Amino acid sequence: MNRSNEFTSHQSIVSGADFLHLAIDEAPSGGKSEWLTQQIRLALADGRLPVGSRLPATRVLADELGVSRGVVTEAYQRLVEDGQLAGRGRNGTIVVGAPATTAAAKPPRPARPPSPRSVFAAAPQADVFDAMRMARARIDLSPGLPDLAAFPRAAWLRAERRVLDRLAASDLGYGDPRGTPALRLAIVNWIARNRGIRADPGEVLVVAGTAQSLTLMGQVLHSDGISAVAMEDPGSLGARQHLNNCQLDTPPVAVDSEGVRVDDLRATGAAAVFLTPAHQFPMGVVLRGGRRSELTHWARESGGLIIEDDYDAEHRYDRAPVPALRSVLAENVFYAGSVSKLLAPALRIGWLLAPRKYRDALVDAKRFADLGNAALPQLVLARFMESGEMERQLRHLRRHHRRRRDAMIEAVGTHLPGATVHGTAAGLHLTVTFKAGFADTDIAAAALARDVKVHPLSWHCQRSRQPGLVLGYAASTPTNISEGVATLGAVLRQLS
Amino acid sequence: MNRSNEFTSHQSIVSGADFLHLAIDEAPSGGKSEWLTQQIRLALADGRLPVGSRLPATRVLADELGVSRGVVTEAYQRLVEDGQLAGRGRNGTIVVGAPATTAAAKPPRPARPPSPRSVFAAAPQADVFDAMRMARARIDLSPGLPDLAAFPRAAWLRAERRVLDRLAASDLGYGDPRGTPALRLAIVNWIARNRGIRADPGEVLVVAGTAQSLTLMGQVLHSDGISAVAMEDPGSLGARQHLNNCQLDTPPVAVDSEGVRVDDLRATGAAAVFLTPAHQFPMGVVLRGGRRSELTHWARESGGLIIEDDYDAEHRYDRAPVPALRSVLAENVFYAGSVSKLLAPALRIGWLLAPRKYRDALVDAKRFADLGNAALPQLVLARFMESGEMERQLRHLRRHHRRRRDAMIEAVGTHLPGATVHGTAAGLHLTVTFKAGFADTDIAAAALARDVKVHPLSWHCQRSRQPGLVLGYAASTPTNISEGVATLGAVLRQLS
Repeated sequence: MNRSNEFTSHQSIVSGADFLHLAIDEAPSGGKSEWLTQQIRLALADGRLPVGSRLPATRVLADELGVSRGVVTEAYQRLVEDGQLAGRGRNGTIVVGAPATTAAAKPPRPARPPSPRSVFAAAPQADVFDAMRMARARIDLSPGLPDLAAFPRAAWLRAERRVLDRLAASDLGYGDPRGTPALRLAIVNWIARNRGIRADPGEVLVVAGTAQSLTLMGQVLHSDGISAVAMEDPGSLGARQHLNNCQLDTPPVAVDSEGVRVDDLRATGAAAVFLTPAHQFPMGVVLRGGRRSELTHWARESGGLIIEDDYDAEHRYDRAPVPALRSVLAENVFYAGSVSKLLAPALRIGWLLAPRKYRDALVDAKRFADLGNAALPQLVLARFMESGEMERQLRHLRRHHRRRRDAMIEAVGTHLPGATVHGTAAGLHLTVTFKAGFADTDIAAAALARDVKVHPLSWHCQRSRQPGLVLGYAASTPTNISEGVATLGAVLRQLS
Repeated sequence: MNRSNEFTSHQSIVSGADFLHLAIDEAPSGGKSEWLTQQIRLALADGRLPVGSRLPATRVLADELGVSRGVVTEAYQRLVEDGQLAGRGRNGTIVVGAPATTAAAKPPRPARPPSPRSVFAAAPQADVFDAMRMARARIDLSPGLPDLAAFPRAAWLRAERRVLDRLAASDLGYGDPRGTPALRLAIVNWIARNRGIRADPGEVLVVAGTAQSLTLMGQVLHSDGISAVAMEDPGSLGARQHLNNCQLDTPPVAVDSEGVRVDDLRATGAAAVFLTPAHQFPMGVVLRGGRRSELTHWARESGGLIIEDDYDAEHRYDRAPVPALRSVLAENVFYAGSVSKLLAPALRIGWLLAPRKYRDALVDAKRFADLGNAALPQLVLARFMESGEMERQLRHLRRHHRRRRDAMIEAVGTHLPGATVHGTAAGLHLTVTFKAGFADTDIAAAALARDVKVHPLSWHCQRSRQPGLVLGYAASTPTNISEGVATLGAVLRQLS
């Protein structure tokens, strides 16, 4: 392999004639090279020149801009010295380095704030969330990601080759908006084996992840005259935002050590509730026993609807599986699952099983949303699920994630001695709470200033008020986990 | 290759324990084998057992059901005789035959109706459309599909291998809802080369096809207080339904031999209009010269918005390219394109460029819809576009489609001598109109009864009333085109 091949991943040859739509008139005379350097930096930052792009030859660009070749050569040289460009031989000049900031192409990572409080305390809540959610850090302990490095690339490619070998041409046309029959069958088998749900493939709607499930359900429930979906408190901020966006109120329902408080749910009068029964997000409680019976009673008695977000139920370490609520309450439960925590969020594949009454409306909503998921990834996933690859991946992730969880528990014990730890028996994150006299957003902001990103618990709270942090461990190495939590400890000592 | 490999396309090993969730209690005593045959037939029909599925061994299933092995053997044998199952050797019993009807898994193809009129004339318009749209026929001349057999499977797989080889793990997480930087750059380059549009990757929103573009725009325009989007008449029924679903009226605007009637557009008072300027759907007119200036004037003067559905502009045969309206009216035009006609609708990838004012709202709408398109297919497509594979595919399709178009023109000349032919210089379909005293739905229904599917022009009409047929040629072989049009000729002679 020659050197140029190393950079061909997203390689594109950018024509000099159109290169970045540069308007040389804007360059100060005497500062043309500086100006050009800056223009290219901006293009590197906002994604117009991704890693692997090839720049025009210096001679071509100089001609195009009407400047001397030295102007272009100097600009390229500076960026080579910055580590952002490489080459300049026969293979041309190629973008090799990720930019320090990526303003437009990816959400910007703010420069280290001199006073983190100014970012996280002064701005309104929504802006704080946006700034923080978009921030990137060297050690990212945000919840919600599996180990992405464990994605089984070779097996995925093998499955894709097989699917492409055997595909009928008609499979490449407009398909069933509910999804391909093969994947719907595979999903039914998967949730039967792993979640105790018996369903017919005809009940399955393949969707673009649980975010889409929430929006489709939100539209359909709102059209059905439902104005509120009660939410666990603490509960997922992302889910709440999706439901609110469908003009649904989300009255909070307290969560205690046994799970969602059904008396509190009754008190809201809401006709529907959003729940994470298998591993409550973010507190990690499992809903079972008496509380589960109470909830079942509520649903049967009032016809109450439950949105069951089964987001990480396959990931359990020290306890027996708990069957999905859907397995006992088929006509009350919207059951939402996805491969985001099993394979990768970037696949954007999930599934939704709905009470019979809402199925046709949901299929219509999906059809109007996008006519149905793309076919190839569905067929590849079906093969993955049916061939045993998916179970293999899950076993691998479990071993892997358990080690990382143990590293997190150990680090929390060492560095956050006053914290209470919640929800360690399953999932991809744990939550710690403090008896502290400061806001958890202050901890998160100070940690971010030290290049460690965590979710403050308060983001996921409505009424509830206990400072805490939601700490994802699955996507970080034990070393990074340990270092990240040590940083949190240092921050806490500083704030106390 | 041994025989079993021939059937592994969607092969799945269905566990006997859960097989079809059979409840043997429901079987009449003395009729267990008949009952089991029927249960399996249902599962074949509704997609629970797709072609390639492997059935449980007779011994395993018999044990599971608590019946004698002969009951299962007999049921399998009947289905082997029907041609739906094969094997029963060491490789097990495998589904090989498509079911006669596929009730749940795919929309049913109605049995040949004894009186087509009863289906297409008696039912209300919406039901007629649904029945017909879902009907399948041996020769399908519906518009809107490229030659799906020409999908470059090997090249796609090569590109995917390369992407998987070089992917960063973080690319598998939650990405930018606007799409990956690499694809947005590739799209900008593609539409610059092929559609005369100069844009920045920051302006591109990657979407799940034009259907999603329409729904996102519909939501955003409706939220902005716009109540109506005028529609070309005739114009795409599918686009109209999508806009109507967003609570937008779609007042009709006449189309004549020069394209959309701008005086008629002014008369509607609508603030926005949906157009197909490069190759009007379904009439095939190109909007240029005076009419194009008039439209530009309308947009500039009134701030009018244009949804430019550039659905098949790359496919042209006998004429020079016409730049997209977007290239001259960036702040008035929502520009929607996709790969559905270039590669395959099943990829569900398209792009939307919007006036600056609406961009943020569209990104939000996309985020709430599905958090952004799946990453892998975006990266593969980016590579495809930037490596020249996409142009190669387009050149191949042009040659291929031109031959099919010529076959269609010849067949129409031979078999439909009284018809006027429209829009042959570009696209994937042509339209014929008649001076006839009967409804075009009658022609389409009678043709469907003879296993030939076409779109009656009236489906795509609001006020306009000229009987005609919209005939897709790109997805059918010259032989089928010739036979299909001959059938239309026979039907016309019969109805005249």
